[in-house]
Amino acid sequence: MPELRILPVEGVPEIAEGDDLAALIAAGIELEARDVVVVSQKAVSKAEGRVVRLADVEASDRARELATDHDPRQLEVILREAVRVVRERPPLVIAETRHGFVCASAGVDASNTVPETVVLLPVDPDASAARIRDGLRDRAGVEVGVIVSDSFGRPWRNGIVDVAIGVAGVRPLEDWRGRRDGAGHELRSTVVAVADEIAAAAELVRAKDAGIPAAVVRGLDVAGPGTGQDLVMPPEKDLFR
Amino acid sequence: MPELRILPVEGVPEIAEGDDLAALIAAGIELEARDVVVVSQKAVSKAEGRVVRLADVEASDRARELATDHDPRQLEVILREAVRVVRERPPLVIAETRHGFVCASAGVDASNTVPETVVLLPVDPDASAARIRDGLRDRAGVEVGVIVSDSFGRPWRNGIVDVAIGVAGVRPLEDWRGRRDGAGHELRSTVVAVADEIAAAAELVRAKDAGIPAAVVRGLDVAGPGTGQDLVMPPEKDLFR
Repeated sequence: MPELRILPVEGVPEIAEGDDLAALIAAGIELEARDVVVVSQKAVSKAEGRVVRLADVEASDRARELATDHDPRQLEVILREAVRVVRERPPLVIAETRHGFVCASAGVDASNTVPETVVLLPVDPDASAARIRDGLRDRAGVEVGVIVSDSFGRPWRNGIVDVAIGVAGVRPLEDWRGRRDGAGHELRSTVVAVADEIAAAAELVRAKDAGIPAAVVRGLDVAGPGTGQDLVMPPEKDLFR
Repeated sequence: MPELRILPVEGVPEIAEGDDLAALIAAGIELEARDVVVVSQKAVSKAEGRVVRLADVEASDRARELATDHDPRQLEVILREAVRVVRERPPLVIAETRHGFVCASAGVDASNTVPETVVLLPVDPDASAARIRDGLRDRAGVEVGVIVSDSFGRPWRNGIVDVAIGVAGVRPLEDWRGRRDGAGHELRSTVVAVADEIAAAAELVRAKDAGIPAAVVRGLDVAGPGTGQDLVMPPEKDLFR
């Protein structure tokens, strides 16, 4: 079993709408085949122009009700991004997004952005990941996997961890059920959310600096098909809807 | 920002009650100061004798009711380990443990163990982590952090990821709120569950082989006080009790 390395992609400037993330990443690090490039949702959203100016938003009564002493226009954006409010403790709203993600503020984020703006999740994070992957193939000449990651809170546990919201060229789930090692021992009894673990691992080198929009995980054997949607639990399996 | 390395601890034999995990780990890898050693719960529990023979268990009516076509004695052990059943879809039980963890089967696991036995969580995973840390200081002469990790499912997402259930010598949460970088930018707007991300990262080199009971994460700057209990959300904050 070889070791893994996790390398920050440094020297990337602040991202603006229209920026070519693949070009910026390829310029910041020497990629190798089978690397997994983990890109922060914030960088992807900014490059895709998923930024809303609060001056352009009018808050509904419901948004005002939830806002307490916060900006009701931000709550309005959250409600528009949500298909379902799962829990609310104003001004905190846990909501399901169109993608099926359940997270705080329906993924709407006001940190590390221009004042009086908020950043939304990408419209289709799997498509975002696939575009970056194609771009890296063109720019760096290597076949890599790409994960778009975002920080989610969890029920019952303090703190946030990064998870994979968009995936391209990475098998997001590893199903070990029934597989046995050379000695005949069952390897694992369950399905591991490998893409989420990769996202969490990459966050460890990005944690201290919002200016590092990407990290590379090297040494994994996870190339293959799959999407971030594979990580979304279907309603019929979900005991916590 | 330096890179991180994740190194599997190889060559550790199957763990049995009374085994000195620190000695086995120190023999398997050259540790460096500030390494974080992530040890699987299964290995810790086996070394601590937290194994129950199903032959010694008598199932209650409630256990029989939940078992459907599974072994009711296993459900009985799960109910004994639980302080509260959070969700049930027989034979699946999501329960809160005495430690405050909410997880499938109250942490009781029948995989990778002797047939007709099940493995329980350590009584006090923070104490387990501290003991291994002390042992590694004695055996390897270095001050490291230790995390005891277990695989938990999550609401709304497919697959399991490893989280930290016991912590020693590692700051489990990194609070970036209000902290700014040299250019005056807010670093992050929230609290990151670093110990859970480390546990997830370490799992990536252990995933394929239940025979690798530990991995080392090298290059982090997370030495400090804290416990696995810091990661347990207090009931008054929890919207999902």
